[in-house]
Amino acid sequence: MKLYDFTLAPSAQRVKVYLDEKGLEVPTEQVNVREGALFVEPFMSMNPFHCVPFMTLDDGTVVAESMSICRYLEELHPEPPLFGRTAAERAVVDMWLRRFELDGFTPLLHALRNHLPNFAGRVVPGTRSDLPQSEAMVSRGKEMADVFFGRVEPHMAKNEFVAGPDFSVADITGFFTLRMAYALEMDIAGSWPATHAWFEKVSVRPAFQI
Amino acid sequence: MKLYDFTLAPSAQRVKVYLDEKGLEVPTEQVNVREGALFVEPFMSMNPFHCVPFMTLDDGTVVAESMSICRYLEELHPEPPLFGRTAAERAVVDMWLRRFELDGFTPLLHALRNHLPNFAGRVVPGTRSDLPQSEAMVSRGKEMADVFFGRVEPHMAKNEFVAGPDFSVADITGFFTLRMAYALEMDIAGSWPATHAWFEKVSVRPAFQI
Repeated sequence: MKLYDFTLAPSAQRVKVYLDEKGLEVPTEQVNVREGALFVEPFMSMNPFHCVPFMTLDDGTVVAESMSICRYLEELHPEPPLFGRTAAERAVVDMWLRRFELDGFTPLLHALRNHLPNFAGRVVPGTRSDLPQSEAMVSRGKEMADVFFGRVEPHMAKNEFVAGPDFSVADITGFFTLRMAYALEMDIAGSWPATHAWFEKVSVRPAFQI
Repeated sequence: MKLYDFTLAPSAQRVKVYLDEKGLEVPTEQVNVREGALFVEPFMSMNPFHCVPFMTLDDGTVVAESMSICRYLEELHPEPPLFGRTAAERAVVDMWLRRFELDGFTPLLHALRNHLPNFAGRVVPGTRSDLPQSEAMVSRGKEMADVFFGRVEPHMAKNEFVAGPDFSVADITGFFTLRMAYALEMDIAGSWPATHAWFEKVSVRPAFQI
């Protein structure tokens, strides 16, 4: 088993935090995606989506999605449970994971890639293209995330962690969602104080010191 | 256990196809989301994200995300496996499910909601707002999906189904991704013949006659 990682990529960081929270170590190789390392062989064939992180299993299978890697490792190492303990808990963790990812993380990811100068020419993750950066994607991404935070805020005010009483992978995706919101200068502390307080609380966990 | 459904909603249809492929029946209630049925109690409290489908478990837990519902049912009814048979298979199914969902389904969902007149005033699923429909979201959504289909096409040319030799939930999400692409008049048959051929093949399955 081997993990291909790039320290600065948020999706790779999600897996690193997961490993740290689980107390797991996986042999890791750094690949500099910014310098196009994934557009040459053998990576071109191993991972035609050209994104980090990806992981090779011992039989050669390539798993090239952050949360799919974490789910796989969770099956091998169930303790401590970060996807829930029972079928019902796992459904609730998965629901909150999906909400943060689809309604917060994804719109903000596209907003950032359409905003920051160093993403010019690669607004779609793992590509090089002439698709221009779009201001409309930035503003709409922030608007969509704002709608999402408004819906999450009452839940965060009542719960210790994203999926309820226990820390889970939903908190990991939540943390990186908030980091992007702050990077886009959204006023989380002023608008969504319970969500901001949750972020401050999880931010001090050792795994998040990256 | 009870499923709340709206026959015309693509995410609710994903669960219906899953149930049909599994040969499962769950007590179901129709709620007309277009007429605002989810913005009144008891649904307002049960499901503050105001989306279908959602499912109540016997202990009152509400699971309100399509794929989280399917994962839960898969744990209770593992056969036939639609999320993979082994940890490695499940990782690969999950990877393809995520790719179709994040890179195809989601951009096209937002393109459609920003395009079709009947989604005016509710461009974000489960909301009523004054966010205007944005032509930039339509064109960029189609451009992003086009990048995605270009990356998927060589894989579809070599594989029977989205995640390899076996039909899985990734095919269900793939089917609805393609349906949105056709609705947006993308030239799938001309540009991505292997992907189109796969769609034609799965479309004749009894579960997809909806």
